[in-house]
Amino acid sequence: MSDNRTATYPVTPRSKVKRMYERGAYDRAAVHAVLDAAFLCHIAYVIDGQPFCTPTIHWREGDRLYWHGSSASRMLKHEKKGVQVCLTVSHLDGLVLARSGFNHSANYRSAMCFGTAAIVDDPQEKARALEAITNRFWPGRAETLRPIDGQELKATTVIGMTIEEAAMKARDKGVGDDDLDDAALPVWAGVIPVSTVIGALKPSPVMDPSIAVPEGVAHYREGRRLDEVLLETQALYEKR
Amino acid sequence: MSDNRTATYPVTPRSKVKRMYERGAYDRAAVHAVLDAAFLCHIAYVIDGQPFCTPTIHWREGDRLYWHGSSASRMLKHEKKGVQVCLTVSHLDGLVLARSGFNHSANYRSAMCFGTAAIVDDPQEKARALEAITNRFWPGRAETLRPIDGQELKATTVIGMTIEEAAMKARDKGVGDDDLDDAALPVWAGVIPVSTVIGALKPSPVMDPSIAVPEGVAHYREGRRLDEVLLETQALYEKR
Repeated sequence: MSDNRTATYPVTPRSKVKRMYERGAYDRAAVHAVLDAAFLCHIAYVIDGQPFCTPTIHWREGDRLYWHGSSASRMLKHEKKGVQVCLTVSHLDGLVLARSGFNHSANYRSAMCFGTAAIVDDPQEKARALEAITNRFWPGRAETLRPIDGQELKATTVIGMTIEEAAMKARDKGVGDDDLDDAALPVWAGVIPVSTVIGALKPSPVMDPSIAVPEGVAHYREGRRLDEVLLETQALYEKR
Repeated sequence: MSDNRTATYPVTPRSKVKRMYERGAYDRAAVHAVLDAAFLCHIAYVIDGQPFCTPTIHWREGDRLYWHGSSASRMLKHEKKGVQVCLTVSHLDGLVLARSGFNHSANYRSAMCFGTAAIVDDPQEKARALEAITNRFWPGRAETLRPIDGQELKATTVIGMTIEEAAMKARDKGVGDDDLDDAALPVWAGVIPVSTVIGALKPSPVMDPSIAVPEGVAHYREGRRLDEVLLETQALYEKR
């Protein structure tokens, strides 16, 4: 684990929050809290001047972010050389309805991370990353699985990126015109909260039904918020 | 509305789904169903070779996608000239746990749209788009609001992009190794479904409490799935 978790990422022209800058933060804890609460991120990269925005699963180890895929994937083939990327995680927390169109808004948390992404070639780092992708989400699960074989290892590309700069941005409040003259208008105003929650587990229909839900999976209880479970499992992973 | 809703977007090297191509589709209905079910998208764009990935709210009118922001925002300033972007919408539907790390997966729906984004300068298109951003999410709401004033109109930039190419990709099934030898291993396997749901509305604390929740907002009932509500309100908007 990185030992500078309380420090702040450098603020540069690239990472500085310009619009609504009062909603921005650059400290590692704030950035990591947004990243770790999500399963899915979006990665922007450029091929021959054309931007692409690809959703994928990410995981974090200190200041390093990882994602993976088939060795055949276009994005990863391209990134073998090591390229600039921007990895963004966003959580939608609410729709904010004001008395004017102008003051409608959204509650959200987002983190934008900049760095150079490259294929993880070192066999030890690759093995550790592939163990982490399981254990980070479901503590202790990797040890219970059928081990990865040589063919699978060859077919899987792991991409790593050290966060060079990052910014977190969030809005978490009520209606923006509550303290303006507009508040007196006879229009319904308020917040529609939204959250991503876990449904009832669907065990494999061909599994021996006597196999109980293991501890690492039991965190994902029906009705719980996914972001809270993911922060919990990341904390357990870091304490290991 | 576009009259070619049942047609297919052109498949090009840029938009062709390469990895797991059997999960891809290019028809307008499939692409639009993913776009319309989300409030938030991620947009990839390039400034001086550096990719950025920005989350924002989007809305759709036929084959045209819109988003907006302050005229001061970096992204929109840059896009005034009209630039290539990739707008992606993703829904996470489930975490898929197999008996090997290799066969762990996710259930999801995503759409990637390519086009040239530019500031909407035409006053009529801009006014229509600003009405749509409200009415598309909350049918009939725009007419109830305090009208936008000249200063606000000036401060708001609307960006439009005609979808030139688009691909939809989805996975919606059980565990990938259920029909392999691994299925006999004594490991818990299954799907953890996730969905984004609506919480209890939080009316503004300064609002006259006799103001009832209007019809356009009442679609957002506690416990409902956000994607279903957004498809419903889009359908109502298109029927207007």
